[in-house]
Amino acid sequence: MNDTLGEVGEAATLARIFPRLPAASAALVGPGDDAAVLAAPDGRFVVTTDMMVHGPDFRLAWSSPHDLGWKAAASNLADVAAMGAVPTGLVVALAAPADTSVTFLEQFADGLRDGCAAMAPGCGVVGGDLSVSPTLTIAVTAFGDLEGRAPVLRSGATVGDVVAVSGPIGAAGAGIRLLFSEAMVDGAPDASLATALRSTHPDIAFQLAPTPPIAVGRIAALAGATAMIDLSDGLALDARRVAVASGVALDLSLAAVGTIEALVGGEDHSLLATFPATALLPWGFRAVGTVVNGVGLLVDGEPFEARGGWDPYEGWDGEDG
Amino acid sequence: MNDTLGEVGEAATLARIFPRLPAASAALVGPGDDAAVLAAPDGRFVVTTDMMVHGPDFRLAWSSPHDLGWKAAASNLADVAAMGAVPTGLVVALAAPADTSVTFLEQFADGLRDGCAAMAPGCGVVGGDLSVSPTLTIAVTAFGDLEGRAPVLRSGATVGDVVAVSGPIGAAGAGIRLLFSEAMVDGAPDASLATALRSTHPDIAFQLAPTPPIAVGRIAALAGATAMIDLSDGLALDARRVAVASGVALDLSLAAVGTIEALVGGEDHSLLATFPATALLPWGFRAVGTVVNGVGLLVDGEPFEARGGWDPYEGWDGEDG
Repeated sequence: MNDTLGEVGEAATLARIFPRLPAASAALVGPGDDAAVLAAPDGRFVVTTDMMVHGPDFRLAWSSPHDLGWKAAASNLADVAAMGAVPTGLVVALAAPADTSVTFLEQFADGLRDGCAAMAPGCGVVGGDLSVSPTLTIAVTAFGDLEGRAPVLRSGATVGDVVAVSGPIGAAGAGIRLLFSEAMVDGAPDASLATALRSTHPDIAFQLAPTPPIAVGRIAALAGATAMIDLSDGLALDARRVAVASGVALDLSLAAVGTIEALVGGEDHSLLATFPATALLPWGFRAVGTVVNGVGLLVDGEPFEARGGWDPYEGWDGEDG
Repeated sequence: MNDTLGEVGEAATLARIFPRLPAASAALVGPGDDAAVLAAPDGRFVVTTDMMVHGPDFRLAWSSPHDLGWKAAASNLADVAAMGAVPTGLVVALAAPADTSVTFLEQFADGLRDGCAAMAPGCGVVGGDLSVSPTLTIAVTAFGDLEGRAPVLRSGATVGDVVAVSGPIGAAGAGIRLLFSEAMVDGAPDASLATALRSTHPDIAFQLAPTPPIAVGRIAALAGATAMIDLSDGLALDARRVAVASGVALDLSLAAVGTIEALVGGEDHSLLATFPATALLPWGFRAVGTVVNGVGLLVDGEPFEARGGWDPYEGWDGEDG
């Protein structure tokens, strides 16, 4: 059961992984041919891609293979949801060192399956690619169905709208700060400290295996959301993106957000949306601010300049772990 | 102009790359939001993904960044074409060392653009992701439009059909053999030897920047192809895949194929299709064999067991270059 990718080979490894992957109900032709064929009932499809690289994006001492599959699904599903679409399928390309165990890859597949089942039932894996690389790398592309609706862009926020969020704000950022401060030994990530920490601090799971509110993207669109974005780089940075794209200012309430740390913590993959002031906020959303005249980000009426968020080029030392 | 990715940062690098990328005529929402929206006029879309990793899949001493963009497009477009579809869009995820020059990435984008223009006009890049990694890694996902037709699968070959190929057979394999025998110095890939070799041996370009017959995929489907596959792993291995999927044997003529080396050389990305014996072979195809009773691959009526093809786990020593 602990054969490695290099020993087992690509074809036999895929044969062990395939049965564990979730099926997509929209797949007209599934994995195994040159390409898959997916249904796009309204004549359009939403598509997004995201890559996770060992080192800057995750540490193997902290993330289990199941976590990695789950998070690779979650981060891509959130981008589909942020358009107001329902996720229909994923393709997954994975490159791993030749000495990676096939068991690791099976557990990664289980994470994809469980993540899809929990966050986007009916969405499945319709294709993929498996390569050898010195650096474990996961590239997922996700698809979604707009069900005939217009996509909810970043550019539609209007002065007077309510700014609302669904899902945690800053929890994943708090989790990564905790790991870097409490789960290191001699400057290297430590597995047993991380496991112990996870059992007592829920923020660790928000970082390693987030469960963003995917189903709520569709609900926001139906409720008339004027703009929407997935909070991948932190509330401050992503709210500013909506503001700039829409040519307005977003004024957030610090009391509603929680803390300054929450404003700048990335990787929650929660959804920020704006709604007309007259709309009832749909299920799953809470108000955190309003859209006002100007361009940029305000907190309690004052300009907020700290960018925060997650820069993959910052603070990465190339160290394994 | 030679700033690195690490110095320039993700956002500014993307701002320099974006204008060079080809636009997709099917894009309803292009890059820049959480996800893109692509048209799928007949209510379905074809999707395939393929990853290229520095080391096992290419050497930087031999491949220019323009070659890499071109080949990343070509290998994915060929999988779309092999379904009988017309390519409509690509998403491109790239991870590169922080000291990669932005100029390198611009030339990679130019290769994507020129490859799309040459092989699939109208197809463009609708989204992407840029990450830092010690290992240069390129993951492309490609989409296509079946224009209302049924996809041409691997499983439809019928006894009596003609086996035909469009594009070179074994040229890319001859190219990589030449590079490994004639463009190495002290066991490492050498750039100037490769450049000199490329000017005199066309097989080198078939390996480094292949131009598979993408437009012919649609023509094959219209002409009634019963099965089709992209020759990524060599004619012998890919013809056997069609045979096994269809429950038949493919009997190839060595005289039509050329040489035994041509049978086992991978990465041509040419198209193999089967057509009813009564059909006129469409433009761009030449007959190389027939479909007969049995299961597997025959050459001139005799079982052919050599697998050949490209195994990413074989013969890779982790060496840079």
